Amino acid sequence: MPQTKKIPLTQNEACPKEHPTTSDFRSRLPQIVDQVVDTCYNNACFEHVEAEPLPSRQHIIDILESCRDILFPGYFRNQGIDRISLKYQLGLEISGLYEKLTREITNAIRHECLRHDISCQHCEDTGKENAFKFVNSLPALRAILATDVRAAFEGDPAAGSFDEIIFSYPGIYAIMVYRVAHELYALGVPILPRIMSEHAHSITGIDIHPGATIGASFFIDHGTGVVIGQTSILGQRVKLYQGVTLGALSFKRDDSGDLDRQSKRHPTIEDDVTVYAGSTILGGDTIIGARSVIGGNTWLTQSVPPDTKVLLKSQELIIKTAQNQPLK
Amino acid sequence: MPQTKKIPLTQNEACPKEHPTTSDFRSRLPQIVDQVVDTCYNNACFEHVEAEPLPSRQHIIDILESCRDILFPGYFRNQGIDRISLKYQLGLEISGLYEKLTREITNAIRHECLRHDISCQHCEDTGKENAFKFVNSLPALRAILATDVRAAFEGDPAAGSFDEIIFSYPGIYAIMVYRVAHELYALGVPILPRIMSEHAHSITGIDIHPGATIGASFFIDHGTGVVIGQTSILGQRVKLYQGVTLGALSFKRDDSGDLDRQSKRHPTIEDDVTVYAGSTILGGDTIIGARSVIGGNTWLTQSVPPDTKVLLKSQELIIKTAQNQPLK
Amino acid sequence: MPQTKKIPLTQNEACPKEHPTTSDFRSRLPQIVDQVVDTCYNNACFEHVEAEPLPSRQHIIDILESCRDILFPGYFRNQGIDRISLKYQLGLEISGLYEKLTREITNAIRHECLRHDISCQHCEDTGKENAFKFVNSLPALRAILATDVRAAFEGDPAAGSFDEIIFSYPGIYAIMVYRVAHELYALGVPILPRIMSEHAHSITGIDIHPGATIGASFFIDHGTGVVIGQTSILGQRVKLYQGVTLGALSFKRDDSGDLDRQSKRHPTIEDDVTVYAGSTILGGDTIIGARSVIGGNTWLTQSVPPDTKVLLKSQELIIKTAQNQPLK
Amino acid sequence: MPQTKKIPLTQNEACPKEHPTTSDFRSRLPQIVDQVVDTCYNNACFEHVEAEPLPSRQHIIDILESCRDILFPGYFRNQGIDRISLKYQLGLEISGLYEKLTREITNAIRHECLRHDISCQHCEDTGKENAFKFVNSLPALRAILATDVRAAFEGDPAAGSFDEIIFSYPGIYAIMVYRVAHELYALGVPILPRIMSEHAHSITGIDIHPGATIGASFFIDHGTGVVIGQTSILGQRVKLYQGVTLGALSFKRDDSGDLDRQSKRHPTIEDDVTVYAGSTILGGDTIIGARSVIGGNTWLTQSVPPDTKVLLKSQELIIKTAQNQPLK
Amino acid sequence: MPQTKKIPLTQNEACPKEHPTTSDFRSRLPQIVDQVVDTCYNNACFEHVEAEPLPSRQHIIDILESCRDILFPGYFRNQGIDRISLKYQLGLEISGLYEKLTREITNAIRHECLRHDISCQHCEDTGKENAFKFVNSLPALRAILATDVRAAFEGDPAAGSFDEIIFSYPGIYAIMVYRVAHELYALGVPILPRIMSEHAHSITGIDIHPGATIGASFFIDHGTGVVIGQTSILGQRVKLYQGVTLGALSFKRDDSGDLDRQSKRHPTIEDDVTVYAGSTILGGDTIIGARSVIGGNTWLTQSVPPDTKVLLKSQELIIKTAQNQPLK
Amino acid sequence: MPQTKKIPLTQNEACPKEHPTTSDFRSRLPQIVDQVVDTCYNNACFEHVEAEPLPSRQHIIDILESCRDILFPGYFRNQGIDRISLKYQLGLEISGLYEKLTREITNAIRHECLRHDISCQHCEDTGKENAFKFVNSLPALRAILATDVRAAFEGDPAAGSFDEIIFSYPGIYAIMVYRVAHELYALGVPILPRIMSEHAHSITGIDIHPGATIGASFFIDHGTGVVIGQTSILGQRVKLYQGVTLGALSFKRDDSGDLDRQSKRHPTIEDDVTVYAGSTILGGDTIIGARSVIGGNTWLTQSVPPDTKVLLKSQELIIKTAQNQPLK
Repeated sequence: MPQTKKIPLTQNEACPKEHPTTSDFRSRLPQIVDQVVDTCYNNACFEHVEAEPLPSRQHIIDILESCRDILFPGYFRNQGIDRISLKYQLGLEISGLYEKLTREITNAIRHECLRHDISCQHCEDTGKENAFKFVNSLPALRAILATDVRAAFEGDPAAGSFDEIIFSYPGIYAIMVYRVAHELYALGVPILPRIMSEHAHSITGIDIHPGATIGASFFIDHGTGVVIGQTSILGQRVKLYQGVTLGALSFKRDDSGDLDRQSKRHPTIEDDVTVYAGSTILGGDTIIGARSVIGGNTWLTQSVPPDTKVLLKSQELIIKTAQNQPLK
Repeated sequence: MPQTKKIPLTQNEACPKEHPTTSDFRSRLPQIVDQVVDTCYNNACFEHVEAEPLPSRQHIIDILESCRDILFPGYFRNQGIDRISLKYQLGLEISGLYEKLTREITNAIRHECLRHDISCQHCEDTGKENAFKFVNSLPALRAILATDVRAAFEGDPAAGSFDEIIFSYPGIYAIMVYRVAHELYALGVPILPRIMSEHAHSITGIDIHPGATIGASFFIDHGTGVVIGQTSILGQRVKLYQGVTLGALSFKRDDSGDLDRQSKRHPTIEDDVTVYAGSTILGGDTIIGARSVIGGNTWLTQSVPPDTKVLLKSQELIIKTAQNQPLK
Repeated sequence: MPQTKKIPLTQNEACPKEHPTTSDFRSRLPQIVDQVVDTCYNNACFEHVEAEPLPSRQHIIDILESCRDILFPGYFRNQGIDRISLKYQLGLEISGLYEKLTREITNAIRHECLRHDISCQHCEDTGKENAFKFVNSLPALRAILATDVRAAFEGDPAAGSFDEIIFSYPGIYAIMVYRVAHELYALGVPILPRIMSEHAHSITGIDIHPGATIGASFFIDHGTGVVIGQTSILGQRVKLYQGVTLGALSFKRDDSGDLDRQSKRHPTIEDDVTVYAGSTILGGDTIIGARSVIGGNTWLTQSVPPDTKVLLKSQELIIKTAQNQPLK
Repeated sequence: MPQTKKIPLTQNEACPKEHPTTSDFRSRLPQIVDQVVDTCYNNACFEHVEAEPLPSRQHIIDILESCRDILFPGYFRNQGIDRISLKYQLGLEISGLYEKLTREITNAIRHECLRHDISCQHCEDTGKENAFKFVNSLPALRAILATDVRAAFEGDPAAGSFDEIIFSYPGIYAIMVYRVAHELYALGVPILPRIMSEHAHSITGIDIHPGATIGASFFIDHGTGVVIGQTSILGQRVKLYQGVTLGALSFKRDDSGDLDRQSKRHPTIEDDVTVYAGSTILGGDTIIGARSVIGGNTWLTQSVPPDTKVLLKSQELIIKTAQNQPLK
Repeated sequence: MPQTKKIPLTQNEACPKEHPTTSDFRSRLPQIVDQVVDTCYNNACFEHVEAEPLPSRQHIIDILESCRDILFPGYFRNQGIDRISLKYQLGLEISGLYEKLTREITNAIRHECLRHDISCQHCEDTGKENAFKFVNSLPALRAILATDVRAAFEGDPAAGSFDEIIFSYPGIYAIMVYRVAHELYALGVPILPRIMSEHAHSITGIDIHPGATIGASFFIDHGTGVVIGQTSILGQRVKLYQGVTLGALSFKRDDSGDLDRQSKRHPTIEDDVTVYAGSTILGGDTIIGARSVIGGNTWLTQSVPPDTKVLLKSQELIIKTAQNQPLK
Repeated sequence: MPQTKKIPLTQNEACPKEHPTTSDFRSRLPQIVDQVVDTCYNNACFEHVEAEPLPSRQHIIDILESCRDILFPGYFRNQGIDRISLKYQLGLEISGLYEKLTREITNAIRHECLRHDISCQHCEDTGKENAFKFVNSLPALRAILATDVRAAFEGDPAAGSFDEIIFSYPGIYAIMVYRVAHELYALGVPILPRIMSEHAHSITGIDIHPGATIGASFFIDHGTGVVIGQTSILGQRVKLYQGVTLGALSFKRDDSGDLDRQSKRHPTIEDDVTVYAGSTILGGDTIIGARSVIGGNTWLTQSVPPDTKVLLKSQELIIKTAQNQPLK
C-alpha cells in the first residue's frame, strides 16, 4: 500500500464533548442564504438580476451543435442519411435553427439594451433579420469549411481520410465554431459569438476570438494553446501549429484612461504563411509577408517581408553527458 | 476523392478457410473476465475494492455546479430569476448543497481512514461540520469572486461586459473552482478538492492546485497551459497569461529517500505582478516583487525585487528573405 | 455599472419603414435548404453521404468509458462493488464491450472499404476477430496501467494517494486512452483509434497519436499541450511535463509529390528519460539516450547519448528595477 | 415448446425472382410524404397547422406534477425536506408554477381566439391573472385535499396509514387532479383542464370531468371505470366504488339540430351518499338524497329521497351443481 | 395522528443474539443467481434465451409515437410547425419510421421463424416490404382517423373542439393505435400489433384486439373497460360507451383437444349501431343489425335485426327509505 | 370549421383600465408560500415533514423493474443475452436488487416506527434480512410465474406464443407484481407492497391487494376493472375475466367503533374455478367450490358447492324493432 501524504484530518483530533447535530447546523442556513441574497443587490457587478431573461448558454451550445449537423450532415447524428432523408433532415434542422437563433439573438440584444438603458423598440425585428442573414450564409460557410478540411488533409501526413479529420480533428472543430461565431459577430450580435468561441476553446484548447478575420484553407495542427486575438487578420492557406499566439503587444488607453477597446492590436498574417509550434507574434502593425515560414518557439514583434524564413538561432544549450545527477 | 493512407486492413488478406463464429469468441469471454477479476486482488495498487463507498466523482462535479449556481445566480440555469424567486432558489440550492457536501465529505474521510487503518469514530461529525464551514464561507467567496470578475473587465480590452466574462471566460471558471476547492482543502477534506481542480483543468486547460494561496482581483487571460503549483503564494491583483508555469525547481527527498511532500516548492508572486504568456517561474524561494512585470517566454529561477521589469533579450533569429524553401 | 464596449447594435439604426415578417423570412428557407443539399453532392470532400453507416462517435466514446470501467473497476460508477458483484459487473461489461466493439469495428472497416471501392467480403469476420483480440488484451492493459499509476505516485509530490491519481489525473486518463487506442491501431482498425485519442486530447489537452509506441511506467505531469507524434518510440519509465512536443522536423514527399505518410518522423526516447516543461524534440532520427534529463523550454533536433543532461543556457534577460512603466 | 398459432408469414411464400432493394422502397417515400402533407391542408379537421403555438401537453403534465409536489410536499421528490428547506422548496415550486401556468394559459387562450377568429388583445393579461388566481387557491386546495385523505383512511379498512394513501391510492390522485383542473375550468381556461383530467383518467381509470362540482371528504375506492360527467353535482362525504357511472340519460339537440352542450345532463348526489361498485345513475334531474346507500350493479334513472337504501333485488340465477360442462 | 393498522413488524421481536452481516447475506447471493440461471434452461416456457434478438418493446412504442406524430402533426411535439417546416418534419419522421419498422418487423419475423425451426431466407426482404406497405398506408390511415375525430365531436356534448379531442380523448388514442396495429396485423407481422394494442390498453383501459375489423367514424366515449375481441366486425359510425364487451361465448377445441384459434368467436356490429355502457355482446354468430341501439348493462348472446332497440327491463330494486343502517 | 362550445373566455370582457403587471402578481407569491407552509404544520394529516426519509416511490418502481428483468430475462432490456452474459446479467441485477431493497425496506420500517413513536433499534438488521429473504425467493417466484404464463397460453385462443404473453399481456404483469408484492407483504414490510400493487393497477387496471393469497397457474384475461381484496384466497388454476370483483360485503367495526382492519372480509375461490366478466363475489365467508363456473355479470354473496355452474337467468329485455328513436 502506498505511503500517502499526511493530510491533517480534522477527525483525528480529540473528540469534542458535545457534537452539534445536523439540525443545529441546518438551523443556521437561512442566515447564510440571506447574506448571499444581499450580495446580489449590493454588488454592482452582478447586475442582471431582475432584468429580462439572459440568453441561455445551453441554448447557444445547442445552436452550435445544430450548425455542425448542417455543415457536416451525417457525421454527428446516429440516424442514417441517404438522398431521400438528407433534404428533410437539413430542412428541419435549418428551420429549427432559424427559430432558436431568432430567440437567442433577440434575448441577447434586449439584455444588452437594458444594460445600457437604451429604449430600443426593434429587438425582435433585429433578431429575426440577423437570424435570417446567418442562416442565409450557411451555404457559403459550408463551402469555405470544405477548403479547411482539404487543407488539413494536405497538411498532415497522419491524416487517414477526410472522415477522420471531420470526426476527430480539434482544429477543424475550432475553425468551424470560429466561422459560425464570426458570422454572428459581423452582424453585431452581442454575447453569443463569445460564448461560442469559448466553448470551442474549452473543447479544443484553441482560442480564436470571433472578431478575427481568417481566409479559406486554414489549418491548425494539434492546436492546444493557440491564441488568435480579436483584431488579427489571416490570409488564405495559413497553417498554425500548437501553442502559437497572435497577440497584442500592449494596451493603449484613451484620453480618459480607459482601455482602448477598438484599435487593431493583433498582427496580420498574409497568404500561405506557416507558423510552427510555440511561436508568438505580437502587435497590430506586425505583418508577416506572404509565403513566409516562422520557425518554432520564436518571438516576433516586427514585420517581415514576403517569402521570409524566420528561424530561432540554435539555442545555446549546456549538455553534460554524465551520471544522473540532480538538475540545477 | 482523396488519396488516403494505406492502413493495413486485416480483411484484405486471403480469406481463412474456416471462420470462428461469434459463439466461439464469446465462449472464451468468461476466462478473460476471471483474469481481470484476479488482477483486482493480486495488484495492490487498486486497493479500494471491498472498501467503503468511494466519494463519487459525478456527485463532486454536481457540487461544483451547485456552487456555481449559488455564486453566479441566474447565469447558468434557464429558469428566470427575480427578487421573489431568488431567495427561494438560493435557499434550496444552499440547503441541498449542505446535504450533498456532508455526504461526500463523510465518504471521503471514511475512505481515507480505512486506507490508513485508522479506527476513526468521527467521520460523520467531521463531514457535517466541514460542510457547514464551507457553506458558511459562501458569502465571502462571492465577494472575492466579484473582485476577480472586475479584474477581468479591467484587464481585457476584448471584454464586452461583466456578463460576457461570467458566461464565457475560462479564467473566471478556473478561479471560481480554485476558490471553492481551496476552501475545502484548507478544511483538510481529502480527495474532493483535487477532483474539483482537475475538472476545471479539463474544462479550461488551467491547472491550479487547490493548495495554492491566491489573493483577490486575480485575472488569467486565455489561460490554456497555465500551471500553478501546490505551494505557490500569489498576492492581490496578479495577472497571468496563457502558458505561465509557477512550478517546482526540483524535488527534495527526505532521509528515507521518499519524496518530501510538505515543503514549499513553488514561487511567491507579490501584489500587482503581471506575468506574460509562456513564462516559467520556478522554485520555493523565488519571490517576484510587487508591481513587477515579467515578459513573455522568460525562464526565471531567481527572485526579483519590487517594481522590476524582466524582458527576454531579443532572440537571435535567422531571417532569410527568399523563395519558399524547405525549412531546415 | 461597467463602461462597456460599444458593439454596433443593428437595432439602434433608424427604424425601417416596413418590417419583413417571420413568414417572409421563413418562406425563403427552402431555397437555402436546397443550396445546402446541393453542396453535399457537388463537393467531393463530404463523400460519405449515401454510403453505409459510419461508425458512431458517440458509441466509440461509450466504448472508451466501458474500457475505463473495466480497467479501473469501482471508480467511475456509483454502484458499490464488492467481491460478490465484481465478477458479475466485469462479466457484463466485458460481454457488452465485445458486442459494441464488434459492431463499431465492422462499421469502420466496411466504411473504409467502400471508400476505396474494394469489394470486401470479410468485414464482419474481421470485426468479430479484432474485437475479441482487443478484449483478450484487457488483462495485459490492466497490468501496464498499474505501472503507470505507480509512476505517477512516485513522480509527483502532490499526489495524496493512488485513488486521487486514478480519479483526477489527466495524465492517467490520456495514457489509458492511448493504451486502448494503440491496441486497436495495432490491429489495423481504422478511424476508431483516432477518435478515441482526440477525445482524450479534448478532455486533457494531451495529444498522443495512437500510433506511438510507449513503454510501461509512463508519467505525464499536468500535461496541457503535450504532443506525441505518430511514429514516436518511448521506452520505460519516461516522464514528461506539460507543453512537451515530440514532433516531426519536416515532411518528406514521395516521387509523385504526395506526402510520405509512412516513414518515421518523430523521435525515440529511451528508458528513464525525463523531459521538462515546454521542451520540443523533433525528428525521426533523433534519439534521446537512456537516463537523460532534458531541461525546460529547450529545442532539440539532434540525438544525445545516454546519461546526458541538456539545459537551456541561462537566458539573457533585460532586468530593469524601476517604477512601473509600459512594457516595450 | 408451445404449439403456436400459425400466423401466415409472408416470408414463407415462394421467393420472388427479383427483390426490390431498400433504395427502391425509399425512393418512393417522398411521394407518400407529399400525400400526407396534402391531407394537412385539404382536411378541415386538423386546422391548427399554421396557427400560433398550441399549449403543450407535456408542459401541462409538468404543471400537474408541480401541483402535486406543492400539495403533498416531500412525498414525490427524493430530496429530503425539513423545516429549513420546506419553505425554499415550496417557494421555488410555486414561483415556477406561476411562470409555467401563465405561459400555458396564454397559449391556450390565444389558440382558442384564433380558431374563432376573434381579435383578442388580452390573452397575456388574462394568462397572468388566471395563473395568479389559481396559485392563490393552493392553500384552499390543500385544505380540501386533507379532508379527502382522511375520508380514504376512514373508509378503507385496508388503508395502513395516511402515507400509504397519498403514495399509492389512485382515487386520491384522481381527486387531486380533478380539484386542480376544476379550479382552472372555473376560471374559464380552455383545453388545460381536460388534458389534465384525461391524464388522471389514463393513470387511474377514473374519469372525472373537470366541470363536475364535488364537495369535501370525497372518497373513491379502487376506482377503475368510474365516470363522473361534466354537470354532475356531488355533496360532501360522498363515497364511490369502482365502475360507478354518473352519466347522461340522452342528449338534447337545440332547434338547429346541434347537440345542446350547456344544460345539466348528469345527476346530483347529496351529502353522505355511498354508491357501490358497478352502479349507474343517469340524468340531469336525478337526485340521490342525502345519506342514501345505492347497492352494487344497480341502474337508476329516477330520484330517491334522503336516507334511502337501494338494493338490487336478488338476481335470478341458474345454478347447476354438476360435472364441468361447456358454458352455454 | 391516525390510528394505523398494526402490521406485524419483524423488528419488534426480541433482538437476536448475533446479527448476520451484510457480507453474510451477500456471500449467499451467487448460489441464488445460479438457481435463477438454471431455471432459464430447465424451463421450456422462456425459450428465447440464446435465440436471435427479440423485437424491442421500447422500440415498438417509439414506432407508435412516431405514427402519432405523423397522423396528428403538431399536436404532440413542442416544436412549432408551419407550412415551411411541416414537409421537412413529416419527411424525416416518415423516413425514420420506415427504417425503424424495417428493423423491428425483421426481428419479429426472424424470431418467429427460429421458434418454429423454419429455415427462412427472406426475413429481411419481408421486413423491408411490409414496412413499405405500412408506410404507404399512412395517407389512408390519416383520412379514416379524421372521420373518427369528427365522430367524437358529433357524439359528445362535452367536446369543446377538435383539438381537445385529439389532445386528450382516450378513445381517439385507442382507435389510432388499433388502426396502426391492424394494418400490421393484416400484413401478417407477428408480435408487434399485439404489443401496440396492449400499450394502448394500458394507457386507456380500452382493449381492442388488432385482428378486429372496424369501419370509419368510430367513437368510444370514456372507454375504460371496453373489450373488442379478435374476430369482431364493426361497421361504420358505431358508437360504444365504457365497459362494453364484444366477446366470445365459449371456446371451441379442435379434434386434438387444442383450442381452436382460428374461427370467428366475436360478434358483428353493423353500421350506425350504438351500444351503451356496461353491455356485453357475445358470440361469433351474433349480429346486431344496422341502426340498432343497445341499452346499458344488457347481456346479449342473440342477433337482433336492424333498427332494433334493446333495453334492460327496469330492474327490480328494493328501495327502503329509512335511517342509515348497515347494508345487508 | 366545427361549431365549438362557447367557453366563457375571460379575455372577451371589457378591457380593464389598468392591468396589474407580472411584478404585481409575483410580489404576492411569498404570502401564498407562507400559507402553504403553515398548512404543513397545522394539519395533522401530512405528518411526515421533519421525519426521516420516506421510502421513495420511484426507487420502489425501479425495484419492480429489476424484478421483472430477473424473472423474465431478455424480454425487457434491449441488450442481447446469451449463455455467456446471462449469468453476469442476472448476477449484477440480483446483487443490485439486494442493495436497493435493503435500503428501501429499512427506510420504510424506520418511517413506520417513527410514526408510532416506537424506539426501534433493528431497522437496518431487519432491512438486510428481509431483503435477503425476498431475493432468496426469486427462484420459486420464477417457477410459479412459469405456470401463470402457461395458463394464459392454455386459456386464450388469441395468444400467439409465450413471448406475446410475456411481452404484452396486462394480466401477466399484474400477477408478476402481485407475486413480488405479496412476498414482501408476507415478510411484514410496510408501504412497499401497496405502492407496487397500485403501480400495477395503474398500468393494467387490475387491482390485486398484496395481502391476497393466490395459487399457481392463475390467469386474468383482459383484466380492466378486476378487484381482488386483501383477504381473498384463490386456489390453483383460477381464471378471471375483466371486471370481476372479489370484494367485502360490509365493514365491521370493533367495540370502539373503529374499522375492523384484520378479519377475513373477501371470498375464497377454490381450485379450477372460472369467473366470467363483470361478476361480483362478496363476503369473507363466501366460498366458490372447486371446478365451478360463474357466468358473466352475476352478483354472488353466498357460497356454492364444487362443480357448480352459476348463470344469470336470461335478462328480461325490452326489444323494439322500429325506426331509430331517442332512447328513453
